[in-house]
Amino acid sequence: MTEEQRNPLLDGKAAPPILVVLSGPSGVGKDSILMRMRDIGFPFHFVVTATSRPMRPGERDGYDYHFLSEERFRSMIEAGELLEWAEVYGHYKGIPKSEVRQALQSGRDVILRIDVQGASTIKQLAPDAVFIFLAPGNFDELRNRLQWRRTESPDQMQQRLQMAAREMEALDQFDYVVVNREDHLDDAVGQIRAIIVAEKHRVRPRRVSL
Amino acid sequence: MTEEQRNPLLDGKAAPPILVVLSGPSGVGKDSILMRMRDIGFPFHFVVTATSRPMRPGERDGYDYHFLSEERFRSMIEAGELLEWAEVYGHYKGIPKSEVRQALQSGRDVILRIDVQGASTIKQLAPDAVFIFLAPGNFDELRNRLQWRRTESPDQMQQRLQMAAREMEALDQFDYVVVNREDHLDDAVGQIRAIIVAEKHRVRPRRVSL
Repeated sequence: MTEEQRNPLLDGKAAPPILVVLSGPSGVGKDSILMRMRDIGFPFHFVVTATSRPMRPGERDGYDYHFLSEERFRSMIEAGELLEWAEVYGHYKGIPKSEVRQALQSGRDVILRIDVQGASTIKQLAPDAVFIFLAPGNFDELRNRLQWRRTESPDQMQQRLQMAAREMEALDQFDYVVVNREDHLDDAVGQIRAIIVAEKHRVRPRRVSL
Repeated sequence: MTEEQRNPLLDGKAAPPILVVLSGPSGVGKDSILMRMRDIGFPFHFVVTATSRPMRPGERDGYDYHFLSEERFRSMIEAGELLEWAEVYGHYKGIPKSEVRQALQSGRDVILRIDVQGASTIKQLAPDAVFIFLAPGNFDELRNRLQWRRTESPDQMQQRLQMAAREMEALDQFDYVVVNREDHLDDAVGQIRAIIVAEKHRVRPRRVSL
């Protein structure tokens, strides 16, 4: 607990931990943002998503994702061990429930990345989380980033761009919007940091229970 | 208008200007905070309060305050030219209405400092303003700062400290609380800056009309 959180004039109460949900269209740069936040030492628990999709070059199991077999993933679904899950482009993706709960219960702030549809589910479960929508500077940037990634076929890419256009309509469910402009990653990271600092100074803190 | 505010995916709408109300007990350091913000070039219109109290050493008319005669102040009250005014410790203090309106109408963000009671009045007039409560680290710091200022008699100081204790109860009307700890002015300024950045990224912007 910091000195500020124990200010006797403010009843000596500690600010409760917050849950930050970072979402946005596929290819907008959620992973790059989180990686940078982790690198510069954001004092957060970064939730590692579970997925049944194959590992991409450079990814590490348990760090970028928990890479699970389809079978293991299905058994987690059945056992109710996922806060939220979805089948996306033929693969499972989901948020391990225990990880989020344990971090929050130990008083740590938690951040998770999730696609826009998943964010809607979390919104139902935890309306008091902080919902940040990461938007692309424009659709050309999104197309470039998906091309650069080289993991999508032309058809998949078209599908993702159409999806992104629809996902922009989900903006209303979010609290904040941050634009991740090409070559300006640190601007976006700085804005997310500011949002978190502001949230920590709310007179009426959000209280997430899961 | 910045590039981000014109993002076509976000409907190309500009974020409307915000009104920030910085309040807190007397002696907590509102003036020092605003002065620092002004010095480091916060892109805000800083509202200059009108007062009928005598100028203190080092203060400049039209910059620190508009120093008015009691007579002039009373005629402004009668003409309805003040957004809010009060008689505090035998002197008038008030916020010139035209200044705030003109700045907002020209699209500029506006910040004003005001005592806690005045903040309540502004809250009625402009519930969509951003209300920041500046709190002292503890009462010793508040006492030290008032002593250092040497403009209050012992009686006045006792009165101000009692008032400060009552004012802490008004916290509920505010959106954010920032602690201005002795020798940590820049921490408080940084937190206020973060709050403003966050407010500028709200999906549902506050719209102040006065």
